[in-house]
Amino acid sequence: MSLDRTRVERVLGPVAPGMERMRDVLRETLIEASGAVRDMTDHVGRFQGKQLRGGLVLLSGEASGNTTDEHSRIAAIVELIHLATLVHDDILDGAKVRRRVACVNERWDNQVAVLLGDFLYARAFALSTDLSSRLCSRILAETTRRICVGEIDQAASRYDFEMPQARYEAIAGAKTACLYAAACELGARYPGGHHELGREMSAFGWELGLAFQIVDDVLDVTASEDEVGKSVGTDVEDGKVTLPVLFAYEAADEGVRAAIREVFTRPGLVGRAAHLREACDLERGVTRALGRAEELVASALARLAGLPASPARAALEELGSFVLERRS
Amino acid sequence: MSLDRTRVERVLGPVAPGMERMRDVLRETLIEASGAVRDMTDHVGRFQGKQLRGGLVLLSGEASGNTTDEHSRIAAIVELIHLATLVHDDILDGAKVRRRVACVNERWDNQVAVLLGDFLYARAFALSTDLSSRLCSRILAETTRRICVGEIDQAASRYDFEMPQARYEAIAGAKTACLYAAACELGARYPGGHHELGREMSAFGWELGLAFQIVDDVLDVTASEDEVGKSVGTDVEDGKVTLPVLFAYEAADEGVRAAIREVFTRPGLVGRAAHLREACDLERGVTRALGRAEELVASALARLAGLPASPARAALEELGSFVLERRS
Repeated sequence: MSLDRTRVERVLGPVAPGMERMRDVLRETLIEASGAVRDMTDHVGRFQGKQLRGGLVLLSGEASGNTTDEHSRIAAIVELIHLATLVHDDILDGAKVRRRVACVNERWDNQVAVLLGDFLYARAFALSTDLSSRLCSRILAETTRRICVGEIDQAASRYDFEMPQARYEAIAGAKTACLYAAACELGARYPGGHHELGREMSAFGWELGLAFQIVDDVLDVTASEDEVGKSVGTDVEDGKVTLPVLFAYEAADEGVRAAIREVFTRPGLVGRAAHLREACDLERGVTRALGRAEELVASALARLAGLPASPARAALEELGSFVLERRS
Repeated sequence: MSLDRTRVERVLGPVAPGMERMRDVLRETLIEASGAVRDMTDHVGRFQGKQLRGGLVLLSGEASGNTTDEHSRIAAIVELIHLATLVHDDILDGAKVRRRVACVNERWDNQVAVLLGDFLYARAFALSTDLSSRLCSRILAETTRRICVGEIDQAASRYDFEMPQARYEAIAGAKTACLYAAACELGARYPGGHHELGREMSAFGWELGLAFQIVDDVLDVTASEDEVGKSVGTDVEDGKVTLPVLFAYEAADEGVRAAIREVFTRPGLVGRAAHLREACDLERGVTRALGRAEELVASALARLAGLPASPARAALEELGSFVLERRS
């Protein structure tokens, strides 16, 4: 188990029993009568990762003094939606390795990966329709729509080296931060009411999630596959211009900018991320991007000030540090 | 406009105002602030086809004397789910032409087709969470799950020439008939109660939908692309052994069986469907498959006997004939 994962498990200590119930729900949910489906869900069960998003539902609930019997089901639903996006993302990215387990689309094919993702979404929605309040279905249906729009906008913005930072953040936010925000809002508000607190916790989740995505984008251009445990350099391969690259491009003169564009677009070029590091002062872009991530985490943590001190609140605060320090 | 489409429009006459409201809801739903998404939804709006499933919601409601202001929204939701499965199916099938408009995955790429399908599912679920009763969300989440399982099972059963008829029907039913059943059940029952009538109308939809799928499978191996307006022969290309082929295979001697397997599997063979027609007595399999479709429609129509005579009931009956007679 990676250091990061051990650390997240420790941070989630205050909600360990809820996490256990969440995993039980996930296990039950992924059991299917159909043998072909079971093979795949068994496989997907093995790359569930740190379950941060599910953890956020439970921690936000605890920290807000809002805990119900249904919170662990909501955590499971959020994780299922995250799993569905991962499975469909593997089709999108052509990523070869995710968390050191072969991706679904490597072991089977694109067809099946599409269907498995659809199946996970459907299970998530079916579970949510069984909850006593409709708040979860409502927030997560809208969140899923926003995730799709974010992904589509990202695909439409490939090779756009002049994208304003605000557009990058809107897209990365819709793609990633949105589900963090939904997890925190649901934790704090479910089954309903508490609009003010919900808005604040949603904003906390959004900022935390956006910082997480920025760090992800930094790791993609700087880390080795061995450290991260999944394919790296895929953003450059896919023509995705992320924040560290946008910042490096902005700071570069026209000659270096041309070199950056060349690295992204020259047909058949192998190892684009390594070439990118040679072509420009990427470190400068990385430093500025990480600065932005730190700013976001600081803003997120300030939102917790209104909550009473508790182990859960402390855990949310530590997640802020984790997001900035993680290496995988 | 094709003869089939004109006929369906005429059959849906008794619910024409509801169909108009359904189309309004679809139009509103497909409008998105994001330009990239709007481009795609504009495109998808053009291949909406006959909207039979939405029509079934409205006709079942009318025929059961169960009409609400929300029926046309439910019809739109059912159509959105159908559209989502079509978009993802185009990835699956590698189909080149659907309803004479380039498929999403031809105009853009697989990535975007996955996302657009996800977006349509998400919109459908978001719409359903705004309805006054949760029955629609519940039935459609479960239906979507079954559709996915059916598709996955179908992928796992490729090149299985010994598949029992019951397994073919279970898979084709989950893949197609399931959404027909849900449409009819929701029409008759929404917002709730009426379990007995719901079961009967669900069974009507299931049988009608299964007959529809069998005829679809027959057209795929017998029709020309020009008649059907979408790629034909794709089942044979994809290794899908459908009912007419199963029946032809069952009736064949070992020599002919080997020839059938050869047509499905020889690498690089062009025009497999045409070769299949030469390799075996496909007509015999087709006749038996169409016989089964007729049986299903007869059983479906018998279920309408309990409903009072009305233009809507007559329209449901005519849809039975249409399913058997359609050529596209």
